[in-house]
Formats: sequence, C-alpha cells, structure tokens
Amino acid sequence: MTHPQPLPPFTDWSAVRQAAATLPTADQAAGQAARARQNNLTKPPGSLGRLEDVAVWLAGWQGTDRPRLDTLRTVIFAGNHGVATQGVSSFPPEVTKQMVANFAAGGAAINQLSRWAGADLDVIPLDLDRPTADFTQAPAMTADEALAAFNAGATAVPDGLDALVVGEMGIANTTAAAALAAGLLGGRGVDWVGPGTGLDRAGVNRKAEAVDRALDRHRDATGDPLAVMACLGGRELAAMAGAIFAARLKRTPVVLDGFVATAAAAVLPGLAAGALDHCLAGHVSAEPGHRRLLDALSLQPLLSLGMRLGEASGAVVALGLMGAAVATHNGMATFEEARVAAGTGAGPDREAAS
Amino acid sequence: MTHPQPLPPFTDWSAVRQAAATLPTADQAAGQAARARQNNLTKPPGSLGRLEDVAVWLAGWQGTDRPRLDTLRTVIFAGNHGVATQGVSSFPPEVTKQMVANFAAGGAAINQLSRWAGADLDVIPLDLDRPTADFTQAPAMTADEALAAFNAGATAVPDGLDALVVGEMGIANTTAAAALAAGLLGGRGVDWVGPGTGLDRAGVNRKAEAVDRALDRHRDATGDPLAVMACLGGRELAAMAGAIFAARLKRTPVVLDGFVATAAAAVLPGLAAGALDHCLAGHVSAEPGHRRLLDALSLQPLLSLGMRLGEASGAVVALGLMGAAVATHNGMATFEEARVAAGTGAGPDREAAS
Repeated sequence: MTHPQPLPPFTDWSAVRQAAATLPTADQAAGQAARARQNNLTKPPGSLGRLEDVAVWLAGWQGTDRPRLDTLRTVIFAGNHGVATQGVSSFPPEVTKQMVANFAAGGAAINQLSRWAGADLDVIPLDLDRPTADFTQAPAMTADEALAAFNAGATAVPDGLDALVVGEMGIANTTAAAALAAGLLGGRGVDWVGPGTGLDRAGVNRKAEAVDRALDRHRDATGDPLAVMACLGGRELAAMAGAIFAARLKRTPVVLDGFVATAAAAVLPGLAAGALDHCLAGHVSAEPGHRRLLDALSLQPLLSLGMRLGEASGAVVALGLMGAAVATHNGMATFEEARVAAGTGAGPDREAAS
Repeated sequence: MTHPQPLPPFTDWSAVRQAAATLPTADQAAGQAARARQNNLTKPPGSLGRLEDVAVWLAGWQGTDRPRLDTLRTVIFAGNHGVATQGVSSFPPEVTKQMVANFAAGGAAINQLSRWAGADLDVIPLDLDRPTADFTQAPAMTADEALAAFNAGATAVPDGLDALVVGEMGIANTTAAAALAAGLLGGRGVDWVGPGTGLDRAGVNRKAEAVDRALDRHRDATGDPLAVMACLGGRELAAMAGAIFAARLKRTPVVLDGFVATAAAAVLPGLAAGALDHCLAGHVSAEPGHRRLLDALSLQPLLSLGMRLGEASGAVVALGLMGAAVATHNGMATFEEARVAAGTGAGPDREAAS
C-alpha cells in the first residue's frame, strides 16, 4: 500500500543543497544477497542478462533481497513555455491543456500503458495559463517560480512506492530540454535539438537558433545547475527534477523516460555525484539528443523501440518489462531446490542452449 | 479460447513442400486499417515507434484491425544430442531431463516468464533417452526421424492462438544450431559458434572443429534445407521448424527466441520465400551467432537485453512487452474522440515532448 506521506516542501534552495550533501545510498548487503540468489537460480549465471541486473538494482534501493514491483506510480507534470512564441512548435500551446484533459479522460497512451504496467497515474498541471517567460528574452522562471515547480514535484512522491516514473507534457518542451541540456553539459543548440515529432529542417534550425540565443543570454548561470534550470528549463522540467530528487531521499527507484525527462534529471548530478544512482534509463528515444544525454550521464537504456512520445510512455513500457525481472528473481527454483546439476565451471554449452 | 485442433501430421516431406508452395499471407486490408487507426490516435503518428509496428503486424496476421494477445502459448521442445560426446558442453546430457522436470515443477525461468506474459506453457520432450547420432560421424537424424520431430512440432500448434512462442532445451544444442546455420547459410564453425553460457576458449574451439567436421561430412546435403536439418540439426530444432511452419499455415503470429530457435526457423525460407513473414524476432541474444543469423534473415529484434538462456525466455519477455502495443492500439482515443488538435503538418515540437 502507498502511504501518502510526501516530503514537506523545501523552504529554499539551500535546503535542497543541504539534502543533496547527504543523499542516501543503496543497501549494499541487500544487493549482494540478491546477486547471490541470482547465481543460484536454475540457469547459467548471467544468462538472463539485464533482467538480473534490474532485479539486483531494485533489491539494493528497496533494501531487500526480494524486490517487488507491486506499488507503482506514474506522475506526469504539464507546463507551458514562453519560447513557443518563437515558432519552435507547430502545435499551439492549447494542446498541452487538451492533452491533460485527454489524460483525465483515459484516452492517452500513458493511460493504457500505466494500466498495462500496473501503475497508478497522477497528472499535475502547472500553471498552464501562465507560460514561463520566453527564455530567449528573460529567465524562464524566477528563482521562486523554479522552487515552487521543484516542490510541486518533490511533494508528489508518496512513501511506499516500489518504483516511480516521472513524465511530462508541454508544447515546445523539447526546445527547453535542449537548452537545459546545453546549459548543463555544454554544446550549442545544434548539438541538442532534433525533429521532435517530425519538425522540418527549417523548424529544427529555428529551435537551434532559439537555444543559442538563450544560451548567450543566460551565460552567467553556467556552473550553477539550479540557476540553469530556472533560466533555461520550464515548470514541468523543474518538477521532474524535484520528484526524482525526492524519490532519492526515500530510496525509491526511478525509471527515466525520454529526452525531456532525462534533461530534467541531468540537473541533479551537478548537486551531488551519483545523484542518479537510483535511476534506470527506461529507453532511448528517437530524438537524437537523448542518446547523447544518456551517454553524458553514463546511463544504459533498457529499451530502444524508436519511441518519441514523452508523457512517460517509454519509461512505463520499461517498468512493465521489469516485472519479468522480479518474477524470475523471486519465483525461480535454485539448483538445490530443483536438483539440477550446476555447470562444471569449464563452461556449459547452453546459450540459448539451455 | 484455444481450440485444440492441430494439423494432422505430414505424411512425407513432399507434403511439407507442397504446403510451402501455397503459404497464406497476411491480411493486407486489416493491416492497413490498423495503420490508419494508429495515425488517428492522440499522439504524433509514429511516436510509439515499434509498438505501432507490432500492432499493425499482429493485425495483418490475425486478420483484424484490433489485434489481441489474450490466448498465448509457449511450447518448449527438448532433445539430446550425440555431438555432446565431443566435449562441446561441460553439462552432462542428464541436465536436459533435469530441466524438463524443473519445467514441470514450475521452477525454471520460463515458468515465471510465461505466467508473467499470460501464456500457457507446454513442454514436449523428444526421445531424451535416445540422443541423435553424433553428426561428426553420421547424419544426426534419418529422414524419418527428422519428419517425426518436425511433426511433433507441427501437431503441437492448436488453432485459436493469438501468438505462439517456441523454445528449446537440449545440452549441446548451440553446437547443433551453429552447424545448422552454417549448413543453411554458409560459413564455417568459427563463424557461428560462441561461448554459449560461458564456454572457455578451448571449448569454443572444440565446438568450431566439431561443426567443421560435420559440415565436411554432410556436404552433399547442401542446398536442400530439409536434408541439412536432418544431418546437422536435432529433434528439438526440427520440431521448432515444424511448429513455426504449422503456425504459418494457421496465420498465427510467432515470436522467435534466441540462437537455437532462430537457427531452426532458418530452415523455412529455403522452402518458400517469405516463409518467416509471420515471425517477429523477440530479442537478440548475447550469443554472437544470433545477431549474424538475424541479419541474414533480415529480422530486427525487438529487445536486446543480453539474455542467453534459451528455453523461449527472451521471446516470452518480448511477448509480454507486446501487450503494451495492443493496449495502446485498442485503448487510446482518436483525435476526434478526445477533441485534441492534430499537428499542422509543419511539424510539432513534441518529442518526448509528449
């Protein structure tokens, strides 16, 4: 059962920095016990590949050698962006609100995927009638606005989750994600923008130019990830960063979604090394900047299905698949239990072979 | 509901060849209707990536624009191999039978994975006390033995399945798979053997040498895929080929597993072009020959999780994930239903963007 005990909101950024200085880490003993169990199950050690790693990783963060994926939640944050006025999207900002209504009515991909994966779905619209400032002209958010958005994420994470997925909806937010990635990790617009859902060449060029103007304008923020997030991000990006951070304080495993969600996550390693150790990259999206971002963060995606929808969709597909890792980990017999001869160590001939 | 109406066994190989000459194909109209539906759902067209392709592919083979994955079956064939005496495996052949007992007791990976994916599991041991002949010395099977094994597979496929997975268990069968792949597609042992579950360098070399001796001995079979299968395969490989073939005659979609299962499938395109059009590669295994085999068959694996267990495990993980494709395809709202504005065509900015 999920107990709805979110964190209290952070009173200021120094409270966030203070929490970042003493992040909890995984339970090494639980992870080792889970690995030992994997090596005793009736299969050649390692032959379930990443399913084994997923089970062991979950075990460490859940602090048990028998991890579960029973209580799951998807949280989607929605925001609107001043930079949309720069012609970086052919969708009008109204679509953000229309899609939030579609989430509420159960008609979106993430409704179906969350049900399929056994996850609750929570949708949190963030001031949709009050877009962020156009960051080619001014900081997207004031420090207070950014803190409020970060807290909207941090307070959306209840205790008792076996895993959390965060996602987003926001017309023009791949432009914000590209600006944020460049501001945090270096490079120019051209290095981080992409076609999104199918923007034409001219549109992609407009995105890159908008990002470059924003980077030039907010150069002073460089080196302070929270300032970069306020200047170049957006409310749903700050909220995702806050939710991922709060999950870490609760040792809750997080599955990351696509380019926008991963750009939000990229804020956190600047606050503390290893700040994303509780995160698994659910997939690599078709948006080219996502692979670059995952590489920069040393994250190995679980899936590569050419998805590029956002709204947590790729992460929730990964979360569903992770059920296979838990099912095998907890349900298989050991060699002793099944009275199956283990290999001689000279190496068995059972790839696939089984 | 599954109606247990298998094919009658093939009376001889010419009956198999005759059936291969008139294979049913996918329902193009159903596939097109499913694609049209995908393009009307509340997401940018194509943004669910391979999930969309999976839904459309299932629609074509099931002959409906609303495909289902409700009635699913995993069939595992087990066999023993004379070539095991050549030191190509450090597991004794008894382990094949022990693992069949483990399947029956519910302790193996495939028990957990089939339950997780909602698939029935059927395990069919094939003369485990009577291994095939050592194919470095003689044909693995006589033509009659190969036909009996092929029929064991063909008659194991009931009507009414929404999808089928076939898998295998058989100590030393990656050596048989490597020999079969080389016999069908060319190359020598070194091109197709691998470490399997972790065979050391000397063991891999022994495998390659055994394959080379077999290829030299059975050179006359080249060009006749059924003869190659009899000389270089094994009972569980012939049975998998038979099951995949029977599924095609019923237009049942098949999800392929790893190196051994795919080597068995590779027999069929030699009988008829497009004979694997009803098959989807569930994953690419860690066994290096599998990628080569998939490339030769122009199959794109859905997953790449470093799995190398066989016993249908990778395919069943893929099958479980395919539930996400069907859930979104059937359950999402269209733009019209949800009153969401579609893109202008100039290209929306919503990768990930939601």
